Amino acid sequence: MTAAVNAHNIPAGAAVVGVDFGTLSGRAVVLRVRDGAELGAAEHPYAHAVLTDRLPGGGPALAPDTALQVPEDYREVLRRAVPAALADAGTDPADVIGIGTDFTACTVLPTTADGTPLCEVPGFADRPHAYPKLWKHHAAQPEADAINALAAERGEPWLARYGGKISSEWEFAKGLQVLREDPEAYGRADRWIEAADWIVWELCGRETRNVSTAGYKGIHQDGAWPARDFLAALDPRFASFAEDKIAFPLSPQGERAGGLTARAAAWTGLPEGTPVAVGTIDAHVTAASADTVAPGEMLAIMGTSTCHVMNAEAGAGAPAEVPGMCGVVDGGIVPGLWGYEAGQSGVGDIFAWFADSFAGGAASREAAENGESLHDLLSRRATGRPPGAHGLVALDWHSGNRSVLVDHDLSGVIAGLTLASRPEDVYAALVEATAYGARTIVDAFETSGVPVHGFTVAGGLKRNPFVMGVYADVLGRPLHLADSDQAPAAGAAVHAAAAAGAYPGIPEAAAAMGGRTRDAVLPDPARTAAYDRLYAVYTDLHDHFGRGGSDALHRLRAIRNAALNGDGAPAGAEHEEGIR
Amino acid sequence: MTAAVNAHNIPAGAAVVGVDFGTLSGRAVVLRVRDGAELGAAEHPYAHAVLTDRLPGGGPALAPDTALQVPEDYREVLRRAVPAALADAGTDPADVIGIGTDFTACTVLPTTADGTPLCEVPGFADRPHAYPKLWKHHAAQPEADAINALAAERGEPWLARYGGKISSEWEFAKGLQVLREDPEAYGRADRWIEAADWIVWELCGRETRNVSTAGYKGIHQDGAWPARDFLAALDPRFASFAEDKIAFPLSPQGERAGGLTARAAAWTGLPEGTPVAVGTIDAHVTAASADTVAPGEMLAIMGTSTCHVMNAEAGAGAPAEVPGMCGVVDGGIVPGLWGYEAGQSGVGDIFAWFADSFAGGAASREAAENGESLHDLLSRRATGRPPGAHGLVALDWHSGNRSVLVDHDLSGVIAGLTLASRPEDVYAALVEATAYGARTIVDAFETSGVPVHGFTVAGGLKRNPFVMGVYADVLGRPLHLADSDQAPAAGAAVHAAAAAGAYPGIPEAAAAMGGRTRDAVLPDPARTAAYDRLYAVYTDLHDHFGRGGSDALHRLRAIRNAALNGDGAPAGAEHEEGIR
Repeated sequence: MTAAVNAHNIPAGAAVVGVDFGTLSGRAVVLRVRDGAELGAAEHPYAHAVLTDRLPGGGPALAPDTALQVPEDYREVLRRAVPAALADAGTDPADVIGIGTDFTACTVLPTTADGTPLCEVPGFADRPHAYPKLWKHHAAQPEADAINALAAERGEPWLARYGGKISSEWEFAKGLQVLREDPEAYGRADRWIEAADWIVWELCGRETRNVSTAGYKGIHQDGAWPARDFLAALDPRFASFAEDKIAFPLSPQGERAGGLTARAAAWTGLPEGTPVAVGTIDAHVTAASADTVAPGEMLAIMGTSTCHVMNAEAGAGAPAEVPGMCGVVDGGIVPGLWGYEAGQSGVGDIFAWFADSFAGGAASREAAENGESLHDLLSRRATGRPPGAHGLVALDWHSGNRSVLVDHDLSGVIAGLTLASRPEDVYAALVEATAYGARTIVDAFETSGVPVHGFTVAGGLKRNPFVMGVYADVLGRPLHLADSDQAPAAGAAVHAAAAAGAYPGIPEAAAAMGGRTRDAVLPDPARTAAYDRLYAVYTDLHDHFGRGGSDALHRLRAIRNAALNGDGAPAGAEHEEGIR
Repeated sequence: MTAAVNAHNIPAGAAVVGVDFGTLSGRAVVLRVRDGAELGAAEHPYAHAVLTDRLPGGGPALAPDTALQVPEDYREVLRRAVPAALADAGTDPADVIGIGTDFTACTVLPTTADGTPLCEVPGFADRPHAYPKLWKHHAAQPEADAINALAAERGEPWLARYGGKISSEWEFAKGLQVLREDPEAYGRADRWIEAADWIVWELCGRETRNVSTAGYKGIHQDGAWPARDFLAALDPRFASFAEDKIAFPLSPQGERAGGLTARAAAWTGLPEGTPVAVGTIDAHVTAASADTVAPGEMLAIMGTSTCHVMNAEAGAGAPAEVPGMCGVVDGGIVPGLWGYEAGQSGVGDIFAWFADSFAGGAASREAAENGESLHDLLSRRATGRPPGAHGLVALDWHSGNRSVLVDHDLSGVIAGLTLASRPEDVYAALVEATAYGARTIVDAFETSGVPVHGFTVAGGLKRNPFVMGVYADVLGRPLHLADSDQAPAAGAAVHAAAAAGAYPGIPEAAAAMGGRTRDAVLPDPARTAAYDRLYAVYTDLHDHFGRGGSDALHRLRAIRNAALNGDGAPAGAEHEEGIR
């Protein structure tokens, strides 16, 4: 049905569809292949959102930290959002040359050998472990602890690729939790598959596994999975987990996974056989729409938290081991380059926490009277003041530290408070703290021999001038801003264009279709100089509390946990050692 | 007029009057001499309150940090509050055997040789330096800095009696400011006198100087004032400051200064000749009404800030030099004992700062709907939770640290914040931080060889059950609570009874007339054990930030000051050394 297309011969009307599967909804966009112009978009919320209390059919309460989803909600995005986006674009489906997707990760589910989600298999609808585990399902921490302890003990070489720690959010921890808590569901699952790959299977009827989730969320490094004896040491029944359920051939990013099935064509309104791109991760695919796939172009996707992705060329010592990175994967963002991921576990959610609960009655009333948000009020008051005039420095560890310390038992600190400190002062200090955190990550890359040539921002916070101004001044660099407000979905569409053969690969597709506004926010040298002094104070506190100078934050966490558990003080709480 | 009275022969109807001159008003109480029962009370606000912007007659704006008062406002308290208190008590003035006063200190004024305030001398009403400087007049910091630098350089022995630092609030700094800025007013002032002594002069027509203000607010130690050559080194014109304007014979606490003049008798409605007690300081005189004049009985007067006063016996090494005490004075509280003063510069004002500006819109609305104060709401929510369940520790240095570090360039810190931290958590952490600060002071006394046998609370915060519970648990001691809600004025009345000869001295008068409820708040051993662990974390942070482990807070202060002054960064701001 779809004619062969290439970069030198792209019909003016040719379009691609990108579908972004987020935490609460899916978004579809239609881009023009020739230049990436966004022709239309639509969103469809998941009917079941996130299951944290009960399964759809009721039943007992779910365990704490459980976060599940319902596969049919994902299909419904294909049935609703894709046709709606096409209608919004006024695009003839016959002009669509490809479809791509991206997904939150690690969001992972058990299926049968034909791709049927286990929760849709008769007899399993009432079993929590038959459902997809959303990225923020945090109930597998004991399993992650076991994996990390064993890997450290055995000196597994892959551990360094993940900053020394496997997350409880990832495939192996979640899989081990299923085995331990519901061995029957575990045994019935022929596959343990990322939703990113499962949705592609739904679209093209062919099982593929993408190299990106395999590397960042699985534990696939240097062509291998964790060894059978490693897995057996975790649990004898877990020995064949990798080979049985996840170790299928991996497809590079930007490849064609297959063509739309008749069923998926009927759902989406697109022609049967339309090329479908290999699955991708939402953060990483954004590099395509922001056109930041070149080596050294760091992309920060800034929202409630921040994910940093950046490519680097393989070299003599590559991949360099950047302290505390979340992961480094060969071809993880585009083929032929090593893709780095780093992150800040709290950013916009710290600002929201403060504005919602600590901005004070007077500020709340004034914002309400002005018809503005508290964020706008606080940003307005804080804008234009000389750096450091508030006398404050904060540590942005309210959700722990993901990079570069990799320590989730750290917590936030504010220093320099006086009776003259106003809510806008603390708000500004928190914004600045996250900017210092970003600078710490940039510095860690550069001192590890991975140069950072540019800094591009995507995500909701790019629209906040106060936050962007602080970041430019603190980093002492111009900020480039991603053009698309639907950057992940647009990135998936760019992948679709590459998969359809319209461009030789992702970099060329990104250059033609992606975009960013270079030098959108420029640093003020005088403010940068002032922030250099504050950053030095931040670094002092960062290293004191984060690198062993003081165990105060760990002791506070241990005391808190003991108090909340009603334990009184556990033995050794004063000199907590094992808590990290 | 007044019959001789003594402890064995006190008429049932005999009464004394105490008048407390506070920051914004004066309060008079009438106590029964036999048992200290409060018979009546009245308050009169100062018409001019505190002059910070302009003089009463207008004129140019006053300099920053200026805080002046108007002597006539003090007299008006005698004319209004005393008769009103007598009327409230239904006491026949003929039954009043004495009157005592207490005053904020150091509140100090220039007068002529006959006691006329300089601001009442023709030609001086429009000169700011002719007015009383209220205790919180902080414009003499450069003069205090000069005094401290010179005293340290010369190794003046008296410096250690003040924790190594003379405050800008005190007599010599304020006097030097007058000399430097208005030498004509300085020259015209025959006297530089504490308002505590001036009001006694107004009452009895006789100039006296009390040993307490001379020791704590002047620089009188071991029978001497700072040497003439020391003062000359500050400014040649300042050489005879002490001998000319302040060095008059000192009267012990609880002595009779004289009898009411006819004029003062007419003002107050009391009989001419009624014994008038020697002047006193508001905090220190409270020990009399709380009956805590015995050695080792620490009294904490807790309000916006806390003042700790405690007597100790002169001994082999006495007076022990407790690190960071505000002052130690022989006979400063009662004759025959060394009176210690220590303090916390921010307590209730930290709680108010947080509640007013940081308790959040939702908390504010809920408190308004409930018709309760934010303090009540936050205290209610925080009450009964296990210590440490909020995971926080704070440093209570929002106004610097008065004891034991004596460093006003320190600032507040909060550690342990997470996105789950609620306003009541931070509020509790701030209350606890001030309790840890109090414990640090108690510990400093004890490790210096000055035992603390009991801990008694007076002042407004004694009525806050949450705060008192935290203090009892953190200190691990029972709290005794002063009975009187007018504790300073009642203390002045106890002094009046001693001065009138109804008792042999202050201790006997205090035992008969003063009172406290012993063991009013008991510690919970389990909570004390939990707080011991949090106090250890507090001490770590205290020593790290306060004793040189980190200069982060000083650097933040230097950066702030430079930013506010528009200086950019001063040379050496990164490695600030001289800022303390």
